[in-house]
This record gives sequence, structure tokens and C-alpha cells, in this order.
Amino acid sequence: MAPTPEGSGDVLTRPEGEDNASWPALPRGPLSAHRARASFCSRELLLFWEGEEIVRFKKTIFSALENDPLFSRSPAADLSLEKYRELNFLRCKRILEYDFCGLDDLFAKPLRIPAAIQCLGMYDWSLANKWVLHMLVFGSTILSSGSERHLKYLEKIYNMEIFGCFALTELSHGSNTKAIRTTAHYDPATEEFIIHCPDFEAAKFWVGNMGKTATHAVVFAQLHTPGGQCHGLHSFLVQIRDPKTLLPMPGVMVGDIGRKIGQNGLDNGFALFHKVRIPRQNLLNRTGDVAPDGTYVTPFKDGRQRFGASLGGLSWGRISIIGMSVTNLKLAVCIALRFSATRCQFGPSEEEEVPVLEYQLQQWRLLPYLAAAYALDHFSKWLFFYMFKLQQALLGGDPSHTQVELGREIHALSSAGKPLASWMAQQGIQECREACGGHGYLAMNRLGELRNDNDPNCTYEGDNNVLLQQTSNYLLGFLERPASDGSCFKSPLKTVDFLEASPSILGQTFTGSRMSHWLEPAAALAAYEWLVSYLLQESQQKLSQERRSGTSDFEARNNSQVYHCRPLGLAFMELTVAKRFHEHAHSPGVPPSLRAVLGRLSALYSLWSLSQHQALLYRGGYISSEQAGKALEDAILHLCAQLKDDAVALVDAIAPPDFILGSPIGRADDELYKNLWSGVLQESQVLERASWWPEFMNKPEVGSLKAKL
Amino acid sequence: MAPTPEGSGDVLTRPEGEDNASWPALPRGPLSAHRARASFCSRELLLFWEGEEIVRFKKTIFSALENDPLFSRSPAADLSLEKYRELNFLRCKRILEYDFCGLDDLFAKPLRIPAAIQCLGMYDWSLANKWVLHMLVFGSTILSSGSERHLKYLEKIYNMEIFGCFALTELSHGSNTKAIRTTAHYDPATEEFIIHCPDFEAAKFWVGNMGKTATHAVVFAQLHTPGGQCHGLHSFLVQIRDPKTLLPMPGVMVGDIGRKIGQNGLDNGFALFHKVRIPRQNLLNRTGDVAPDGTYVTPFKDGRQRFGASLGGLSWGRISIIGMSVTNLKLAVCIALRFSATRCQFGPSEEEEVPVLEYQLQQWRLLPYLAAAYALDHFSKWLFFYMFKLQQALLGGDPSHTQVELGREIHALSSAGKPLASWMAQQGIQECREACGGHGYLAMNRLGELRNDNDPNCTYEGDNNVLLQQTSNYLLGFLERPASDGSCFKSPLKTVDFLEASPSILGQTFTGSRMSHWLEPAAALAAYEWLVSYLLQESQQKLSQERRSGTSDFEARNNSQVYHCRPLGLAFMELTVAKRFHEHAHSPGVPPSLRAVLGRLSALYSLWSLSQHQALLYRGGYISSEQAGKALEDAILHLCAQLKDDAVALVDAIAPPDFILGSPIGRADDELYKNLWSGVLQESQVLERASWWPEFMNKPEVGSLKAKL
Repeated sequence: MAPTPEGSGDVLTRPEGEDNASWPALPRGPLSAHRARASFCSRELLLFWEGEEIVRFKKTIFSALENDPLFSRSPAADLSLEKYRELNFLRCKRILEYDFCGLDDLFAKPLRIPAAIQCLGMYDWSLANKWVLHMLVFGSTILSSGSERHLKYLEKIYNMEIFGCFALTELSHGSNTKAIRTTAHYDPATEEFIIHCPDFEAAKFWVGNMGKTATHAVVFAQLHTPGGQCHGLHSFLVQIRDPKTLLPMPGVMVGDIGRKIGQNGLDNGFALFHKVRIPRQNLLNRTGDVAPDGTYVTPFKDGRQRFGASLGGLSWGRISIIGMSVTNLKLAVCIALRFSATRCQFGPSEEEEVPVLEYQLQQWRLLPYLAAAYALDHFSKWLFFYMFKLQQALLGGDPSHTQVELGREIHALSSAGKPLASWMAQQGIQECREACGGHGYLAMNRLGELRNDNDPNCTYEGDNNVLLQQTSNYLLGFLERPASDGSCFKSPLKTVDFLEASPSILGQTFTGSRMSHWLEPAAALAAYEWLVSYLLQESQQKLSQERRSGTSDFEARNNSQVYHCRPLGLAFMELTVAKRFHEHAHSPGVPPSLRAVLGRLSALYSLWSLSQHQALLYRGGYISSEQAGKALEDAILHLCAQLKDDAVALVDAIAPPDFILGSPIGRADDELYKNLWSGVLQESQVLERASWWPEFMNKPEVGSLKAKL
Repeated sequence: MAPTPEGSGDVLTRPEGEDNASWPALPRGPLSAHRARASFCSRELLLFWEGEEIVRFKKTIFSALENDPLFSRSPAADLSLEKYRELNFLRCKRILEYDFCGLDDLFAKPLRIPAAIQCLGMYDWSLANKWVLHMLVFGSTILSSGSERHLKYLEKIYNMEIFGCFALTELSHGSNTKAIRTTAHYDPATEEFIIHCPDFEAAKFWVGNMGKTATHAVVFAQLHTPGGQCHGLHSFLVQIRDPKTLLPMPGVMVGDIGRKIGQNGLDNGFALFHKVRIPRQNLLNRTGDVAPDGTYVTPFKDGRQRFGASLGGLSWGRISIIGMSVTNLKLAVCIALRFSATRCQFGPSEEEEVPVLEYQLQQWRLLPYLAAAYALDHFSKWLFFYMFKLQQALLGGDPSHTQVELGREIHALSSAGKPLASWMAQQGIQECREACGGHGYLAMNRLGELRNDNDPNCTYEGDNNVLLQQTSNYLLGFLERPASDGSCFKSPLKTVDFLEASPSILGQTFTGSRMSHWLEPAAALAAYEWLVSYLLQESQQKLSQERRSGTSDFEARNNSQVYHCRPLGLAFMELTVAKRFHEHAHSPGVPPSLRAVLGRLSALYSLWSLSQHQALLYRGGYISSEQAGKALEDAILHLCAQLKDDAVALVDAIAPPDFILGSPIGRADDELYKNLWSGVLQESQVLERASWWPEFMNKPEVGSLKAKL
């Protein structure tokens, strides 16, 4: 458990010849001294953290992009929307030519999928999402919601014969998917469905790839069969443009929704369908089908169950977004910590300035986000792994009871995991931007792009606040349905099992008063188990109280979110992430030289997250002495100080190559000012006089327009 | 104090003929019903809040912009950097032609200055800042740091014969201004100063207006006189471009630092000076001068004092930024609340959907920021008023003791007020963005622009975290210098006077347990006074403890920021803002019909801000029962529910005209979807096929590049 001797970080700067291809030597520069102080070797951490297979795979993608002029970077370039979209489309095609993860990989090496998404996203989320929406979202929806008759589309997708998008949201409805108003009426005379939007408020809206490129869309619409019966939301494959001309199909008004806050290489669009006829076979019929004569058939007994199954695929989306958010957080902390280790400002005397990372305040602002990046990264992979296992199992046939339960648990974890990860990234990026001062505000340093590109992660695939209710409902649900063995809480991944002991947990208190008590590995998790138990109890009581006072269930739930169900969902999630990271950091497979640093990271994440609930710990009586709260804060600062010298090495293990990171102040050599200066001078027309300079000669006549006011 | 009868809000929809020019009738639309439920008349609030003079003045500016095609809006337009800068420059010239606040107004109607800045900023911060940097920052620095011999420049500035910028920050130094490395050596032979940057790290950097337009700069440099003596930082007027050609002067390498996260209409630049000679008279000599023979003369005894005086003008900058941040927060809450009052999603039954503002969670996410916008707006004007009075007094001659003390107090208030306001705006805008869901992410709705444009408020004129130390140092300083009458705490604006009673305040506790106890007007302020007393005591103890353990003063201070001095500065500021707003809301001049709503807003701001310190209230023993904390939260939710129906009317009183707000989802009629739909269709090339469509025909050969990997 002891840290390796000081200086083992030196390994990183060994001569280039000794390095293998997946790990080029880090450049010498101002950070060499900092790296030499690390308690561990960042290459060893990288290999432990990612596994050699994934390290090599990522390296392959990164190198391909770096060596291909189509991906040449001009970070703050003044691209027009049209030009950026064109470039992004060309790059997306090129990705298909590289075919980084072929179809055969999908099952043999599933972890390559999120790895590929993250590599492309580290380069540019517009690119990653264009590719993901076409290949994975559009493609996999057809695979999972359709049947054999739709398999023919997969090759067309893969070859880009057609280009796809996923059209669920409408102008006036997003979160409330049941209220979608586009209809699909079946006409037995021609064996066609008639896709129709009653008005522009029912136009499909926000659909990625729909703005300029998609030829086909998976369209969600209310299915009506003759006789006026509505069978609820179903998905249909609708051709929206002619693949030969990219002109719209008759009856389809399709366009671009315009500039967004970020991800502008991606063309989000809208479509208004006016009685568009599509063949009966274009219904994606896994959860319900219409016979030629118009009879509706479904394997599901009730509509609710069918509805749930048809939206089940959304868990994938949320799990992907957790990974995307973590990726953004990683990039931001890499930039901010390398900057902080070389940027000097103030010092003990007027002559001597110290790197800003030496300031406790700067450590406290950044290191917890570094710990969160590691914690959430591990959680993200863990959840992906089980989701993948679940899906494999489901392809085998009807789900077993355990699989249904696993599906519910994964749904709950992805529904709170996405909010936790996307908010953590959004806040972390903002903190990193500010921690880099003015230079963080320069577009070329990329923190603005990260913030703008991460932002929609808080919204799409379910608004964060709305999603959290799924998780609190899941937890509250256990209270109403004890298992056959009499226990309430039991789930396949065991994330809720500790709640069985709630009554005794709620009787526990923190008896320590010193920092060392909080630093004991189990202390933070025990406090969290108390916290989640407390919030669950409080939420249940609040709900009962609301219901007793005569409000409807709808209102009772609404009035129990702010200080009850919402923090319950978040705290449960933080505990789950903290537990997973704790177990991983303390597992027997961890190389001895990494145990100290991973243990500290795990403790920092847990204690820092926990400290944000300090009021509840006091209020509910888990801690009571003034000293206990102070000791918690001391422990956080102590861990920050311990991790400070490891920060750059920790960042080296998660940072992509400089080309991908694309931030002059975040380069591995950290020749901060040289990189910045070059970056500025390489922009276009830096030293040139503005083309409109004669306007300066044309002087204003001061006050000449005052009379017009 | 009773609210006016329901329906008095109807006044707002009176026929157009009855309205005067400064208050056009609000349009009928989906929000009419909501407006009719308001407890007060928003026109009355507007007049009380701003005063008729300012209401008319703002209206004049808004109308001028709206009626002038040069200011035509295309919010999400695809302008190139060059084009945007040109447009912004032309608009800046046009502002001089309108001459909204002439020189004579500056003293007679000082409140017009911040009002004008805010009006222009509501339209576009690039424009406001370009104008402010030239006219106010450059101009007023010459006025306040120079002497009679520099007055001739004022007219040139006013006529735009020259164009100015303020060059303090260097590539490698921002916050630590003392470490600025550009030098000004005096050469008695030619009676010139030689301005020189020793290397590119000393290049002036980030300077607004320097990128493309400035002809002159106020340059801060270390002044050296013959014999090798350095007299510290002084400011010099340096010509950097030829006003006839806008080409750089010999020896000046001046350029554009490139795209930023926001405010891209403004040209931020850099300048590297290579032995540039300027006349002796160009030293701005208020705080120190050099005689022709090279003798240095200063009215100040020590360099510290002189340094302080030369940077004193920075308080203006911080006070302006408080106003800018509040302006951004106002715009964001206007957009999000109007959206929330019309956007319907989910409901008690599948048929009936309710506006999202009816959800407690949405109220809790947004209404506290509305309250904060009002609270900080009032504080901002109050602080401006005293700063203006102070400056007027100082022009009269040597400062009195009270004026020196007032200067110190204003410095402390602006140093914590800027962090509080800029962070509140940044967080509030983010919450508003998320609260508007996907539509909040559409660029045309402007929340992204607000976030990006507000962001630098957290950094420039002093990094927020660094600035907060000024305020905590100010408070701690009182402990070391009791006044002549034996009391410690006394300041001209009385913001610290309550601390005199700290010993007894620290003995108080909150004895209530019900929501009604927190709703008593004095409850939140009493709790805050305890909190600030507690944090001051804790900070002092922490500092002593650090010092006793042998660390240097530099380190002791650094190690006392995170959980001590930083929250001390913030809590003191929150209390000050809450107190001012409380007093204003309860002052005799408040029209009876506004008392209820303003009282609630004030209470909501105080309790919501206070609730973020709940852990300390428990830890320090100010509250102890579980019930007390819950009651605090109940009180917040109760106020949100009470204010919900007033929200739109409260927004109407601070919203600019639709043209200025420039957000389809935030328009006063709130025909949400019609406005959005029009907005989308009005963009360019919405329905057009992409120019690069033939690239879609040119299919990728899947996997063809795999061999190259």
C-alpha cells in the first residue's frame, strides 16, 4: 500500500527509443519537475485503468486522425455554419472508411464502442454524434425495434446508401413522450400508413442529422387502425429525402433548426409531415404489428408494458451520455491542471512567484473534479458492461425475472447517472474555465467549446430533473413490494441491498471528531448509507403526508421533489459511484504502486461529494459535534494536498494526445506561454489591418442624431 | 401590507390609447391570464423601481436601436468574426451620434451612465463594452490618472479622432499586477520614455479594443529613472496605430488575440513594445511625475500608498461589472419565466397538461434567481450612488478620514459584490438554460450568448476568488485596529457595524421550529448576522492557528481561504445585499400595493441564500432541531408558491422590449411556438439543400483505409 519511492515518475521521461508505440515519451518541459514528484508511474496507471487492448485501440484512432489532413485542427477557426457542416460530413464518411470498430467487434470487443465514441468526441462532439446518431441510434433502433424484414436496411446504413436520424421529440413535446401528436393512420386499401402532423407544433424538432443530411428517419407516431382505435406510440421508418438528390420527399417539409449553443457541426432539424404514405412494412414491429387487413397484434398484454418496451432502448442513450460527460470532464481537468502546474502568480515574496496549483484554494477547486472524473469513468464502464450483458441475454429470448429486475436497476442507475455525470461535467468545466483565468476564456483553449458541447447532456435523452424522479420512484417502489423472502431491498447489481438494514443504519452516528476518522476508508461510505436511508425515509414520509392532506398522487409527487426525492436520487447515485470506485481502488488486482493514489482519489471523491450534504448529516443527527464537520473539511484539504504532486501524472493517464486535446494551455509539454503565443500568431489575419479600416476615417458627427430621439 | 385585490394586474392590458409612450401595452396572448393573476400592477412596480426619469431614458435608447436598421437583429446569424467586428464598430460610432448621455449628463444625472451601459449590454455586450472601454475606461483613466496637460485628449476621444484601450494585463501576469514586466525608462537627453517589453511574456494581452481599432493605449509599465531607480507601476499614454491608416506605429507589434468564448464583436488584442519612444508628457502623472532632468516627484510618501491610489479606479470597473452581471441575470430569468409560464408538459391526467411553472421544482429552480436579480439590482444602484458621491468629494481635494474609510468600504463591497453578482448570473443563466429544455439550447433564444458573454465577469477586473480575499482582509482588519472610541467595527455605510455586537450575536440561537418563524421579516437577517460573526471568528482563529504553527503570513492566509475567509467574504456580501433589499422593500416610500410582493421577494432572496449555509448554522449551534432546518426549506417553497402567480408581472417590470431581449421563447406575448417556428423559418437557407450535397453521392468505401491504421 505504500507509495513507490519518489521519482518513480521519471520512467515517463525515458528516452524515446524505449517506449512502445502506444505510449510515446512525454516531452521535457516545465512540467518534468512536477512529474518527477509523482508517487507513481502514469503509464502503469494508464494500463491498469484502461487495459492494454483499449489503450492500443484508442491510440490507433487518435493517430489516424492526427495523420489525416482532413482532421487538421484550427480550434478557434472562423468556419461558417455551412462549411463546418460540410467538413463534419466529410469526416464522418472518412470514419466509415477507417471502420475503427467493424461489425465483428461489436460483440467480441464491446468496450471498443464507447472507447470509439469517446475518442471521436475528444476530437469533436459534432463528429462523434453525427456518427453515433446514424450508425448506433438509427441503426440499433431498427435492429432492436424492427424485425427480420428490416435487416436489409443495416447494410445500407453501414455503406451510407441511406443516412439516418431518430425523430421522437416534437416542437411542443419532449419529456412527455406519451403526448406526442404525430399520427400514423393505417389504410388497408393500399396497405400503407399515413404519417401526419396535425399542425406545426407537432413537427418533429431537434432531430440530429435531420437538418441537411438524413434520407431516412425513425419517426415516432400514434398508431391508429381502421375503426378509430389508437394503439399508442410506435416507430416507423420514413424516407424524408431522396438519396440521389437530397431533396425532400413529397409531403415532407424538412429543414434545419439553425445554430445551437454548441455542436454546430451537427445538423439538427425539423420535419412536418403532410399525409406522407409509407408501406405497411415500415412499421418497426417488435412491440406491435398491423396485419394487411388492419388488425393490430402485439405480444404485450397492456399498452403500458408495450410502451415501456418500446422506449427501453433509451437506457443506451443515457449510458452513452454518462460516458460523454465523463470525457468532457476529463478534457477540462487535463487543461486546467496542466495550466495550474505551470502558471505562476504571486508568491511569498515579490521576487518569487509560485505555480497556482500550490495554492490550497486552487487545489480544492480542481482536484475533486479530477477525482470525480476517475470515479465516474469507472462507473460508466461498469454500467456499460452490465447493460451489454443484459442486452445479450435479452436477444436470447424472453427475459427472466432477474433480467427484468436488472433492466429496472439499470434504468434507475442510468436515470440518475446521467444527471450526476452531466452536471458534474458542466460544473467542472466552468470551474476549470475560471481556474484558467482569462486564458481559459480564449476560444482556442477549448474550455468554452467543452462547456457548450456538454450542455445538452443535461437535457437530451431526458431532462436531468425529470429523470431523477425515475430513480427515486425506483427506490420508493421497493417499500411497497417486499420480495418473496420477506426482504424489501434486493437488486441484481446489489446497489440497493444495503437499504435492507436501514432501520439499524438510521440508528448509527459518526462518533469520530478527527480528520483521521473521516480518512478511514469506510467512513464516507457509511455516512452515505446513512444519508440515503435518511432521505428515503424522509421522502416516504413526505409523500404520505402530502397524500394524507388530500392531494392527488400527481401533486403529492410534484411537491416532494425539491428537498426530498431529488436529493434522494442524487445521493443514491453518488453513493453508488463512490462505492464502485472504492471497491475498484481497493481490489486485489490493483498494482501495489497505485494503491495509495487510487485510495486517495476515491476518498476525495466520496468525502467531497458527501460534504455537500453536511447540513443533512447534522440535521438528521448523524454528526453532531462542531468538530466532526470541521474534520470532514480538513480531510478533504488533506487529500488535496496529498494529491497535488500526483495531479499532473493523474492527468497524463487520462489525457489524449495534444493534437486531440487541442488546447495550447493544456499541452503535455506545458510550455504555456510559448504555446499560447504560437496559437495566437497562427490564427488568420492576426497582425493585419481590418478590411473595414476606412470606416475609422469616416468620423461620427457626435450628437447628430440626438434630435431624432 | 395586504396584497391588492386579485385581478389588479388587469391594468396591464388596458387599451393601447391609454398608455403613455414609455409603457406600451403588453400584448394579449397566452400570458394574459397569468398576468391577470398578479397581485400588483407591473407598471407601478417599474416606476417605483426605476423612477420615471430612468424609465424614459431607457425607452429612448431602446427605441433608437429598434428603429435604426444598423441595429437590425439576427440573433443566431452566421456572421464571420471580421463582419461582426465591423458591424460592432459601426454601431459604436452610431452610439456617439445618438450621444445618449452627453457630457453634461455625467454629473447632473449620473444614474444615466449605468442605465446606458445596461441598455446597450441588453442589446449586445460586445457593443456596450467597446463603447465603455473607449469612452469610460480609457477616457476616465486619462482624466483621473493624468493632469491638465492630458485634458486635450478628452475631446479627441469624444469625437473618435483617436480610439482608446486600457493595457494592464500581460501574457504572463494578470491578477498580480505588481509583477507587470513592461518597462518605461526615462531618457533625459530627448525627454522621452522608452516603452519596452523584455520578451513576449510581457506583451500586453487581452486588451479590449486593441485587436483592430485602438490608436492609443493607456499602458502600465514599471517606471525607471536615470541611475537605475525603479518607481513601480505607472500609466502612460502610448500611440499604437496611426489614426490615418490604422497601421501600427514603429516598434509596436500589435494584433488580435483571436476568437473568445463570447463577446466576439469586441476586438481583444496584444501589443509587444520594442523600445517605443513617447514624450515625457505622456506619463499620466497624477500619482507621480518625472521632471525633464529625470527627477521623480510624487505627492505620496510611500510606494504602497501610491500604488493603491493608481489602481483605485478599478473599483469603478468592479461596480460596473456588478451591474452587467445583474443585467444578464435579468434577461435570463425573463426568458425562462415567460417560457415556463406557457410551456406545458405532463399533467394530472393524460389529457390535461400544465405549464411547467406550476411545478414546485421549476418554481424553486427559477424564482430565487428572480429574487436575486431584484436584490442585486438594488444593491448595484446603491453602491454606484455612493461611489459617485465619493468621487465627487475626492475631486474637491485631499480626502478626509471619512472619505478614505468610505473608499475602503466601497473597495471591500465591490470586491465581494463582483464575485457574488457574476457567479449568481453565471449559475442563474445555466439554470435558466436548462429550465428551458432543448429550446433553451437553440442559439436564437440567447441563453448561450448570455452565458458566454457573462462568463468573463467572473475573471476580469480581478479573479473572483482572488478578489474575495480583499473583503475578508477588510473584515479581519477591523479586529486589529479599534477606533478611537474603543469600538472595533464602524464604517461609513454601516455595513460592518453590527459586528460590534458579535459576542452577543454569537450567543444567540434560532428558537423557532415552524415555517412562520422563518418568515418573520427579521429572521433571515438575524441568522445571517450570526453566520458572518461566526465565520469571522472562525477565520481569525484559523489564521492565528496557522501562524502559531509557524507558517509565513503568506501561507497562513492561503491556508485559510477555502472554508474560512472565502465563505466569510461571500456571506458578508449576501447579508449586505439582503439587508439593503430588505430595507428598501420595507421603506415607507413603497406603494402599498407593492409591499407584499417586494417583501416576499426580499424574504425569498435572504432565506434561499441563507439555506446554502445550513450546515454552518447547525454546526455552530445557531439552529439545532431537525425541525428548524426543515422549516427553513418549507419557508422557501412557501414563498415560491406565493410568488409564482406574480412571476410574469415581476418579469414584465424588468424586461426590455422584445426587440432588445431578442429571444423568441421570451417574447412578451409568449406565443411560444409561433415565435419559435417563425424564428426558425426566418433563418437563412433553412429549407435549402446543402451546397455540398453531391458529397453524399460520393459514397465511402467502408473499411478502405483500415489497412493504413
